[in-house]
Amino acid sequence: MSMLYLTPSIRLRRTPFSNRVDSAGAKAYTIYNHMRLASYYETPEEDYRHLKTAVQVWDVSCERQVEIKGPDALRLVQMTTPRDMSRMQDDQCYYVPMVDSAGKMMNDPVAVRLGQDRYWLSLADSDMLLYCKGLAAGSGLDVEVFEPDVSPLAIQGPKADELVCRVFGEEIIRTRFFRHKTINFQGQDMIIARSGWSHQGGFELYLDGSGYGEAVWDALFEAGKDLDVRAGCPNLIERIEAGLLSFGSDITMDHTPFEAGLGKYCHLDSATGFLGRKALLDLQEPAKQIRALALAGPAVPAINHPWPLHDSTGNIAGCISSSTWSPDFDTNVTIAMVKREHWGGGTVLTAKVPDGDRSAIVRDKFWI
Amino acid sequence: MSMLYLTPSIRLRRTPFSNRVDSAGAKAYTIYNHMRLASYYETPEEDYRHLKTAVQVWDVSCERQVEIKGPDALRLVQMTTPRDMSRMQDDQCYYVPMVDSAGKMMNDPVAVRLGQDRYWLSLADSDMLLYCKGLAAGSGLDVEVFEPDVSPLAIQGPKADELVCRVFGEEIIRTRFFRHKTINFQGQDMIIARSGWSHQGGFELYLDGSGYGEAVWDALFEAGKDLDVRAGCPNLIERIEAGLLSFGSDITMDHTPFEAGLGKYCHLDSATGFLGRKALLDLQEPAKQIRALALAGPAVPAINHPWPLHDSTGNIAGCISSSTWSPDFDTNVTIAMVKREHWGGGTVLTAKVPDGDRSAIVRDKFWI
Repeated sequence: MSMLYLTPSIRLRRTPFSNRVDSAGAKAYTIYNHMRLASYYETPEEDYRHLKTAVQVWDVSCERQVEIKGPDALRLVQMTTPRDMSRMQDDQCYYVPMVDSAGKMMNDPVAVRLGQDRYWLSLADSDMLLYCKGLAAGSGLDVEVFEPDVSPLAIQGPKADELVCRVFGEEIIRTRFFRHKTINFQGQDMIIARSGWSHQGGFELYLDGSGYGEAVWDALFEAGKDLDVRAGCPNLIERIEAGLLSFGSDITMDHTPFEAGLGKYCHLDSATGFLGRKALLDLQEPAKQIRALALAGPAVPAINHPWPLHDSTGNIAGCISSSTWSPDFDTNVTIAMVKREHWGGGTVLTAKVPDGDRSAIVRDKFWI
Repeated sequence: MSMLYLTPSIRLRRTPFSNRVDSAGAKAYTIYNHMRLASYYETPEEDYRHLKTAVQVWDVSCERQVEIKGPDALRLVQMTTPRDMSRMQDDQCYYVPMVDSAGKMMNDPVAVRLGQDRYWLSLADSDMLLYCKGLAAGSGLDVEVFEPDVSPLAIQGPKADELVCRVFGEEIIRTRFFRHKTINFQGQDMIIARSGWSHQGGFELYLDGSGYGEAVWDALFEAGKDLDVRAGCPNLIERIEAGLLSFGSDITMDHTPFEAGLGKYCHLDSATGFLGRKALLDLQEPAKQIRALALAGPAVPAINHPWPLHDSTGNIAGCISSSTWSPDFDTNVTIAMVKREHWGGGTVLTAKVPDGDRSAIVRDKFWI
């Protein structure tokens, strides 16, 4: 992989787990919400194989939280998203596309409901804290908006339940998908949810108080020795196979939720208070949309700018945003924004990869 | 310097000049507003010497623009800043601390007035685009808020005037400090201002249209051969000497503009419409403030977490955010947030640098 050097600075924030991540041997990083995020430990392929067979602990502190608290908390959250929040329970997590007044995506966090008047947004890579602050200031709603000292730690993989059971108790592994419970660690209550940015199952612990970070990490590694617990991170191969979209890569502020394939989260039939409703009503039939593609040939190079897709006459048919070699599916698993006339399953396009043209087949769905 | 590897991805955006920056031999990068920014080319010391004697071209595309356009543009900008914007001229640039309703810093951009109803904010490292969008949506102001395809290119150093004169004409070098004029490049009008994030003088060209990027770059390098023009970037040593504060390092969302030493930009005597006025009225006498410090001993290591400052009894006296060796001033030039009881010039403190304690002397002002 063609790598760049990253100059350290305070602006690129360390996390409560950074000492442990460094010791565990993270080999490369990305920057996400002004914060470090490891991108692999052994190789992306070895991390992937381990993630699918054992259990990993991921420092995803960079999923920063926006806390919205006060009598108008629900009203403010609902203004930002087409998803109907009205029936959300106090122990629920919702995946929520966040959309501006013009119908364009700003973020796609997981919203965590902590009570009638209190929500966290567990962010993708943009400062939604600032949007929420601006919206609160402009609208005069009765809410506090701030970033709490909360840093998610994911426990992912087929043995995640066993590890969580050992450390946090059997009650916790009865948590349903996208529901949360509370654990107590050294006297401190913390939220733990069955969620995470992989398809392998597991939990996200919302570390509440940076000071507990290394002790929580150490407790998990101590208890999981015989499970071969390792440090890990969101894995490029596994997340493309599973169709987990990366905001900033696959979805940007140029896209609507319909283009992003998130139409099922858009409840536009009733006036919930969502500010982008009027704009989205006119955008429900997108001219392009996210698709899974299989790219022929050997492993593609690392992608750092969009690769064009051409049709058989050489016209632009779309644009690839994520692509990498999948050992399990024996192809280059790929995410692209594809024009309507080309997005049907089985359509064959040409991908303009830097090392040459590749045949690309549009799929009906992702791999897993 | 202890370096990390950065994994390439589309989310870490390339710029209109990235091909040229790579070819020019940038050795390391940082990520700023989700975008690449070179951090040095030869070594920080060699870049520094060259910046102080010749002329450099800097890809500072990462200073993303927020365009605010419409009848309420001035009103919206004024809501975000304690600086009185009412007398700003159409050819002026203002350094504007941007402050939330609680009086805390969110960004410190250069605002560029393009007309009565049109402003750009040339951003430091946070998504003020989202704050402005939220504020516009919440307040119902009649404005458009968007990121235009505009990427600043800085021309800095003692020979910047000569280079700009050759490429853009003599009229341009008569531009006063923090004023702007318009040049025409290959038929495209672009703003050029006498400004830049160094103390060496020069200009910032607001590249208007990514497609012109490489042609503008090449024109500058072609015309500047005998001036020893080189690719450069904001230089850590030079900017600390000059007291140029880095948002995210020296100033964060935890700080007020008074703590950041930006009190002179706070016009709280009249009700301009600035939303944080009430909060700031109570925060005018800060308990800690930005100071320049000289750290004794040899060159300090690279800083990636705040270094504590202790007083003679071992109590916390403040916190260092930036520090590096200055060849010209023969000391470690340093920026710190220092408690009131210790911030007087000449006060001697102890800096807890990772490789050992250092004597630190508080200065009355920065070096240049």
